[in-house]
Amino acid sequence: MFGFKEAEVAELVRAVVPGAHDREQIQTRFAHALWSGLAEPGDRVAGALVRELGASEALASVVERRPAARLASLDATVDDVQQGLDRWTPRLQPAAMLQWLRQAARYGARLHIPGDELWPEGFDGLGESGPLALWTRGKDEALAALAHSIALVGARAATGYGEHVTMEASAGLVDRGFAIVSGAAYGIDGMAHRAALASRGHTIAFLAGGVDRFYPSGHDALLTRIVEHGLVASELPCGSAPTRWRFLQRNRLIAAASQATVVVEAGWRSGSLNTANHANDLGRPVGAVPGPVTSAASAGCHKIIREGFAQLVCTPDEMAALVTGGIPDEPEPVPRENTRLLDALSTRSPRTVDDIAARSGLTVAQTQSELGRLELDGTVRAGERGWTKRGARRET
Amino acid sequence: MFGFKEAEVAELVRAVVPGAHDREQIQTRFAHALWSGLAEPGDRVAGALVRELGASEALASVVERRPAARLASLDATVDDVQQGLDRWTPRLQPAAMLQWLRQAARYGARLHIPGDELWPEGFDGLGESGPLALWTRGKDEALAALAHSIALVGARAATGYGEHVTMEASAGLVDRGFAIVSGAAYGIDGMAHRAALASRGHTIAFLAGGVDRFYPSGHDALLTRIVEHGLVASELPCGSAPTRWRFLQRNRLIAAASQATVVVEAGWRSGSLNTANHANDLGRPVGAVPGPVTSAASAGCHKIIREGFAQLVCTPDEMAALVTGGIPDEPEPVPRENTRLLDALSTRSPRTVDDIAARSGLTVAQTQSELGRLELDGTVRAGERGWTKRGARRET
Repeated sequence: MFGFKEAEVAELVRAVVPGAHDREQIQTRFAHALWSGLAEPGDRVAGALVRELGASEALASVVERRPAARLASLDATVDDVQQGLDRWTPRLQPAAMLQWLRQAARYGARLHIPGDELWPEGFDGLGESGPLALWTRGKDEALAALAHSIALVGARAATGYGEHVTMEASAGLVDRGFAIVSGAAYGIDGMAHRAALASRGHTIAFLAGGVDRFYPSGHDALLTRIVEHGLVASELPCGSAPTRWRFLQRNRLIAAASQATVVVEAGWRSGSLNTANHANDLGRPVGAVPGPVTSAASAGCHKIIREGFAQLVCTPDEMAALVTGGIPDEPEPVPRENTRLLDALSTRSPRTVDDIAARSGLTVAQTQSELGRLELDGTVRAGERGWTKRGARRET
Repeated sequence: MFGFKEAEVAELVRAVVPGAHDREQIQTRFAHALWSGLAEPGDRVAGALVRELGASEALASVVERRPAARLASLDATVDDVQQGLDRWTPRLQPAAMLQWLRQAARYGARLHIPGDELWPEGFDGLGESGPLALWTRGKDEALAALAHSIALVGARAATGYGEHVTMEASAGLVDRGFAIVSGAAYGIDGMAHRAALASRGHTIAFLAGGVDRFYPSGHDALLTRIVEHGLVASELPCGSAPTRWRFLQRNRLIAAASQATVVVEAGWRSGSLNTANHANDLGRPVGAVPGPVTSAASAGCHKIIREGFAQLVCTPDEMAALVTGGIPDEPEPVPRENTRLLDALSTRSPRTVDDIAARSGLTVAQTQSELGRLELDGTVRAGERGWTKRGARRET
């Protein structure tokens, strides 16, 4: 099978795909597993080829060095494919490739491929630059929870304010039935996962390297807890190191997997703005939490609100409303009609209708009519010597 | 003149309008002075009548009890005018009216009427609900400065954060040549005036009562300093008490007089949101400063940003840009092309082009071309045993 021993492949694939039985299933899954390491995340040409030929046939084409001209399609020119082959071929190293699967099996990781029941529907929006596989560790039912999820992302250099808001947001969203998606980084990401775990909610961490390599290492304990109670996921095979490119591409998975992305704190150049950009490109709602203008950690949030591609959100309700619909606003009735009348009344000195009319600048008829209405409310009352109003005047 | 002794009127008017000489000038100004106390601020029928007939003729119509049918116009029906007459007539109290002017003279106040050279151009946007007169104390040249002015308004219950931001905003806008308009209230308003005075800028305080009655009384010293170095203004004659209605109407003057309104801190029901509403109705730009979502004093700012009628502004530059044009954004180049290449390079271990190509997932040709370009930048260098990159990797 692609030059590998079939029995060995079957054993390895079955270890990471408990349901795989027949030869075709095993071959397809194996091909996706290999593609996840041959192509860098977001490789459109690999995506086009796999979509066009299927993962097995596409992989066979690379292994057999078929000419690019035979593989070109509407979505990938001969040049595209030739450059793709030049990129992928140096990575065709059988020993290393088997190691991806062995390491996955050792860590209890599982392999998901497009079309699987649990494959996140949100990835469809990525088209040909979508992931070719998803490696997971933890509770796979969290993948189903992605259908009702919000990404909470932000600066690693978070402030106490940002962490507090993240905690409230994550717990509040879990209470409202949302799964919490993030990137397991220090600062906002870590707090988002932690608060979701504390609230016994679903939480999914997307990593930029393999799911066997927890990053950052200071979050080993947190990621271990996420594996126990939530899910850790990556499109790269085990053994893959996180790189800057992979961080940027990982961000597109966070944006695509969730229904909306909320940036809690972000400096002017924070990576979380990249996630917000991906969400925006995908047509997903983006929220940003404002903060003090004196805090550099909120500058990125303010920027994307000002640029109009993030909505300002303050509360879990407002974050949830990004997904479920318009943000509910407390109605604020602006008093107009009665204001002048009430201004002209005293709580202590009774006044005549004529006096009230002159003071308020209303007509006598308007004054009488309004006084009658307000008397029914209990706002004003008529005494022997005239009208008074009740209670303390609200301040302006 | 409207039943008053002409010599007395002339003396009183000359005291508040240094330039008034001929009889017609005096009569017109006197009529405007009286209208400013007969009609409540924002009285559209009074505005329509004065516009239609001129202030003198309109006043004569009220004094002489002319029938409403003769005074109706396209902008004021017979009913409107009848109700107007019923409102204004009870206030035709000659002794009180003369007292408005005497008190103004005593306080060194001056009277401005529409059409005067210094009449704020911004008031034109108010149409018939615009002020019928403007009473001022202080340096009238500040009226000319309104042509390049920004209103800084906000909560009385300001926080230390809000006062800090207001101070920076006011000083920064003065540095950029703007006059600072506000309402002399406690909190944000007071700080806006204070910082403008400290920066030797123009500052104009609009009051809800007469300019002889400083309100709030705790701002006596501040308002005295504004009279000395800036301007205190009101559309109501001296002796008028501030009322809730007049506060709301005073807010429209703040919005109309300035080129843009910025709300620094505002609770959910702050009066400064009313100012922002007026500015919005007038088509003037509105800015709001965000703050911690945990601060009730910023809830109103967040609301109007979210509702889309205020732009989020953080700095004096961004506030100035509300008036002068687009908010300048620091360009943020997102590195794409080189990222994968740099990820594949080490600062210490030299690597071959083939190795770099395999690690980066780029073709050998792309790798060579990019390496050449980056070598020119000094970002990477070639040694005997291969390529290395310089310096510390920027974090994601």
